Amino acid sequence: MYPKAIQKLIEAFSRFPAIGPRTAARFVFYLMRASDAEIEELVRAIGAVKQKIKFCEFCFNAYEENGNGLKLCEICGDKTRDQNVLCVVEKESDLEALEKTKQYKGRYFILGGVQDILKKEAAQNMKVEELKQRVNSGVKEVILALNPTAEGETASLYVERALKPFGVTVTRIGRGIPVGGELEYADEETLRSALEGRR
Amino acid sequence: MYPKAIQKLIEAFSRFPAIGPRTAARFVFYLMRASDAEIEELVRAIGAVKQKIKFCEFCFNAYEENGNGLKLCEICGDKTRDQNVLCVVEKESDLEALEKTKQYKGRYFILGGVQDILKKEAAQNMKVEELKQRVNSGVKEVILALNPTAEGETASLYVERALKPFGVTVTRIGRGIPVGGELEYADEETLRSALEGRR
Repeated sequence: MYPKAIQKLIEAFSRFPAIGPRTAARFVFYLMRASDAEIEELVRAIGAVKQKIKFCEFCFNAYEENGNGLKLCEICGDKTRDQNVLCVVEKESDLEALEKTKQYKGRYFILGGVQDILKKEAAQNMKVEELKQRVNSGVKEVILALNPTAEGETASLYVERALKPFGVTVTRIGRGIPVGGELEYADEETLRSALEGRR
Repeated sequence: MYPKAIQKLIEAFSRFPAIGPRTAARFVFYLMRASDAEIEELVRAIGAVKQKIKFCEFCFNAYEENGNGLKLCEICGDKTRDQNVLCVVEKESDLEALEKTKQYKGRYFILGGVQDILKKEAAQNMKVEELKQRVNSGVKEVILALNPTAEGETASLYVERALKPFGVTVTRIGRGIPVGGELEYADEETLRSALEGRR
């Protein structure tokens, strides 16, 4: 048995996404040998994220508070972006991947909860009600950019149905992305053609 | 681009063993959504490991300071353990795996640095000089329990040669472990036969 202090930290790291106790133990042994400066930096960085990072009131993307009083992320606060089109993604890293293509000029909406949609009552985890509100405030087209996985497809269908009463155009990004793949890992060219090939 | 606070934490997590920027980003997004209590627990656990965990002066295993003044881990401080035999492992988790078999009653020695042995001048990272000192103080048998990988085999040969002048019996754990596999992942039965089948 590892000493108690080590066990506790292994448990904490085991709660990280996709991390099991063995990998968690490797993290702990890595930290045990890291310099004091490195540890301080890590702890400070964790604190800074918790303190400074907020979620945008419109799209739920993460942004760093800059004291301008706006509770919007950089994209939603940018009035030059097309307010008529809204791109729905599952998570922040998907938004980042799409932004890197520099092809999309509208706003985003981070839906969340797509991973759990095939579980019972899990549709609650998706921010569908919030999405309806956003759509209701003048959006003309919603682009669904969820992963072309079983979960993503199910979530897309679910959202499509939920948006039907609003008479908004709903498109999906083209199947440039290999079925079963993950949006986050697609290269920029593939993402670009996927955006152009929406139907 | 992610906000600066997020970037900084991604960089910190990217330094963890076998963690790339994408996985690091997932950690950050996980922490952004974690409760304050969970974050506090993580930060406290990191601090506790850094503060309480020391490395045993004999075997370099990690132990929690208990104020008894001994600078030895539980195993090395246990006078009922066989002082004649010394089991050389690469890292803490290998020691843990062997201890779980409850078959070995001697002491250990954590060699470290085996992963880098095939790189230039990397043999310096292994605690071979320290091992010689331990062997010189009355050890009769050294069991080499390094992974049967290219690195582990090379390190075993290196250590065997270094210990030759001391006239100590050097054995290696039996090849119950599949070649190319990792000691840390072997089941207890395999490890037990490996211990018994040493030659």
